[in-house]
Amino acid sequence: MNHDRDAEASRLTIDYRNAMVAAVGPEHGVSDAMLDEIASVVAAQHARLGAEHAAGGQRWMDLPSDTALVSEVETFAAEARTQYRDFILVGIGGSSLGAIATVQALVHPFRNVLPPEARGGPRFFVLDNPDPEKVAATLEVVDLASTLVNVVTKSGQTAETMANFLAVRQALEVAVGPEKARQQIVATTDPTEGLLRALADQEGYRTFPVPPGVDGRMTVLSAVGMLPAAICGCDVGSLLAGARAMRAGTVTADIRENPAYLLAALCILADTRLDKSILVTMPYADALFGLSDWFRQLWAESLGKRLSRDNEVVFTGQTPIKALGAIDQHSQIQLYTEGPNDKLISLIAVDEYRAQVVIEGVPTGIPELEYLQDAELGQLLQREQLATAWALTQAQRPNFTIEVPTVDAAILGELFYLYELQTVMAGALLNINPFGQPGVEAGKNATYALMGREGYEPLREELLASTGPESVYKLSAG
Amino acid sequence: MNHDRDAEASRLTIDYRNAMVAAVGPEHGVSDAMLDEIASVVAAQHARLGAEHAAGGQRWMDLPSDTALVSEVETFAAEARTQYRDFILVGIGGSSLGAIATVQALVHPFRNVLPPEARGGPRFFVLDNPDPEKVAATLEVVDLASTLVNVVTKSGQTAETMANFLAVRQALEVAVGPEKARQQIVATTDPTEGLLRALADQEGYRTFPVPPGVDGRMTVLSAVGMLPAAICGCDVGSLLAGARAMRAGTVTADIRENPAYLLAALCILADTRLDKSILVTMPYADALFGLSDWFRQLWAESLGKRLSRDNEVVFTGQTPIKALGAIDQHSQIQLYTEGPNDKLISLIAVDEYRAQVVIEGVPTGIPELEYLQDAELGQLLQREQLATAWALTQAQRPNFTIEVPTVDAAILGELFYLYELQTVMAGALLNINPFGQPGVEAGKNATYALMGREGYEPLREELLASTGPESVYKLSAG
Repeated sequence: MNHDRDAEASRLTIDYRNAMVAAVGPEHGVSDAMLDEIASVVAAQHARLGAEHAAGGQRWMDLPSDTALVSEVETFAAEARTQYRDFILVGIGGSSLGAIATVQALVHPFRNVLPPEARGGPRFFVLDNPDPEKVAATLEVVDLASTLVNVVTKSGQTAETMANFLAVRQALEVAVGPEKARQQIVATTDPTEGLLRALADQEGYRTFPVPPGVDGRMTVLSAVGMLPAAICGCDVGSLLAGARAMRAGTVTADIRENPAYLLAALCILADTRLDKSILVTMPYADALFGLSDWFRQLWAESLGKRLSRDNEVVFTGQTPIKALGAIDQHSQIQLYTEGPNDKLISLIAVDEYRAQVVIEGVPTGIPELEYLQDAELGQLLQREQLATAWALTQAQRPNFTIEVPTVDAAILGELFYLYELQTVMAGALLNINPFGQPGVEAGKNATYALMGREGYEPLREELLASTGPESVYKLSAG
Repeated sequence: MNHDRDAEASRLTIDYRNAMVAAVGPEHGVSDAMLDEIASVVAAQHARLGAEHAAGGQRWMDLPSDTALVSEVETFAAEARTQYRDFILVGIGGSSLGAIATVQALVHPFRNVLPPEARGGPRFFVLDNPDPEKVAATLEVVDLASTLVNVVTKSGQTAETMANFLAVRQALEVAVGPEKARQQIVATTDPTEGLLRALADQEGYRTFPVPPGVDGRMTVLSAVGMLPAAICGCDVGSLLAGARAMRAGTVTADIRENPAYLLAALCILADTRLDKSILVTMPYADALFGLSDWFRQLWAESLGKRLSRDNEVVFTGQTPIKALGAIDQHSQIQLYTEGPNDKLISLIAVDEYRAQVVIEGVPTGIPELEYLQDAELGQLLQREQLATAWALTQAQRPNFTIEVPTVDAAILGELFYLYELQTVMAGALLNINPFGQPGVEAGKNATYALMGREGYEPLREELLASTGPESVYKLSAG
């Protein structure tokens, strides 16, 4: 990991004073002694991760270096931006959350309603859920003759994605014919195996690789996240440069010098020693809400694990919550402040927003409104963040703040890498495997069974028996 | 509450078998004995609520009857729909979440990109957060000469709303002049007092009332929620009729006959007796995600309370989580299934979606995809819901399903009323006051202090002292 010596410096700061004993008391705060104690575990796990990486594992760490892929993505995206009026991303979970987070952070929030010349590329639609209302509405709105479709699934097994894709593919074929439809499809999938790979080869789709050896939720810095982002005009080169900056800034094993390890330690100590079973991520910027949603998947799927330990079944994992400042001050802060003290709350503060809105012309005659004259909205939002951190601390609710200078591609890259390393280290501290998601297999198989997929007949029988309509525990009103 | 004898029948069903001992075992399931035990408390609280309502309290229960307001709202909305090209709602928390939920449920998901004739009314924008990037983008996109602004705050004190409103007001004045600007503003506020009432009187805005005696988070069925919804083309008459149907269906004190009381009992028993400190609401329909967000505020602010009981401080309140099926199967179900068994999970199932998308033309040559030939997306989504309920139950995770026939205005009205009564009863079962939000005062005052509002100088000094930049607990990477 020492190939980042020339990387830009990280521009992100963690202020964790409000998570410490001095701020919120010994019952709810992390102590220096706890940090000292866990530091050696962190250092040992750091060494293990480094060794695994050297031996060809932990491949997600390499994604920020793939500048060749950036070129390929940018070339494709540049052409797509001039060629297409609409763009549909078909993918779910790790195959869409990273792209959504990136686009939400870096492009105009009303990009789809801007005129084409102001937009600089196709409108952006995501088909993640196989919700017929949303899919039908999307197909109604787009101009299929000028629509690019990017279907993303590593295995091609994902029922939701393949169902949505096959529906869109059929609509394209009807609109423009099979030959042209194929040219309007780009598949991001495993380079060598799986159902979508087979289909792409059979139909001749242009493809980009889902990187082998990387969990879906860690693929945002690959073609999975970057291709859609680039098509929407995001600067993916800077995104990866930011990720490299964070990688360069997290080479130390020292918990007090490495922000990813510090955050991992704070979260795991809060969870396992202070009963903070919930981790709230609350950026003070609409643009970063998608990041919070992306992180929610990363944290939940990586750490929510069932395992046997000393002949006992153990269930691990903090429950992540996505929140948004200042909106959730008017929704969740009552609970966070006066409800159970079971949360660690991460605020994200922005030093400089990309727009300024100064309030002028405040009507005279109402003295209580005068304080808003010449106030600037970003300043208000920053002060809301400070006020919330202070109020939470007063109520002994542990919290910390990630401070970013502004929202741009590089800082987003930093945040993606920071959270990934934090999550992998958190898994190490819990002594679990943060990769894989064995707990979703049962539900997936049940869906296949109910859909009549071949090979799932016995499960189908079992399911139909258990979900029949008769039950005394059913109630209709009135 | 017996004035609903002529109301339509409720069309909603609760299937709660998977929350019971028989399904998930005694450690995680509610028992019939527990329900029997709590039934008498519910009955007593039902009598208390009825008595309070008869004595002029619990005014939120009356909102569904205000058909005169419906007429007024519809008349205004009908004119606004023909007159304006754009519509901005300015409000936060209870002043926007209900309208957002309604519009998201009932109008085309890409309404803002539809051509005007297909849209049947102005485009819809919400300024909730005082995020300068979002506010600037909104002001850039709308046609101010043809924009209606609805500002919603009961007191006119809310810093975020007044800041956003004053910024929009100024932009309007610059664009069309002060006289015309006033005509493009409609204020929903307290009928007699507060800063926005004073400003509206001073400037001559058209106003609608925020109903006195009703908490902000219970105002969706008043002008607060209905006016924006009607302007976007929602059928608010049916919305209120649905709420009346649910009101008529919840007159019984019997926990096994009253869906609101049953849900309250299940949630409170799960929280207080089975350590399910988290309540997940996971509709299987994009259209109902806003409802889940609206409920998240209702549940958190109403039940998240700090109180003294027997000389001890008690913190109450389940933490609500908004989720979306099937998307969160690829994000949270791993945690819900294999992480800590600390959640009660509410699924919402839809019997008939408003669109059908049948998959045709599945390419031959890949047998594993054949099961999707002729499959319909809504059917897939329904089966995902069944599969998830089954998989959660297999893992002993208690869950229940609210079944709705379809998504329409009446069913949405039912759900709003159901959740409100459920929440009020849950507060009663916790022996707390579900109204008010005392825990947010500290943060609000801190914001005023930091913004330099008159009268908050001492707090400002305290804050500046406590949030200075110097700290050893600050870390920058690299």
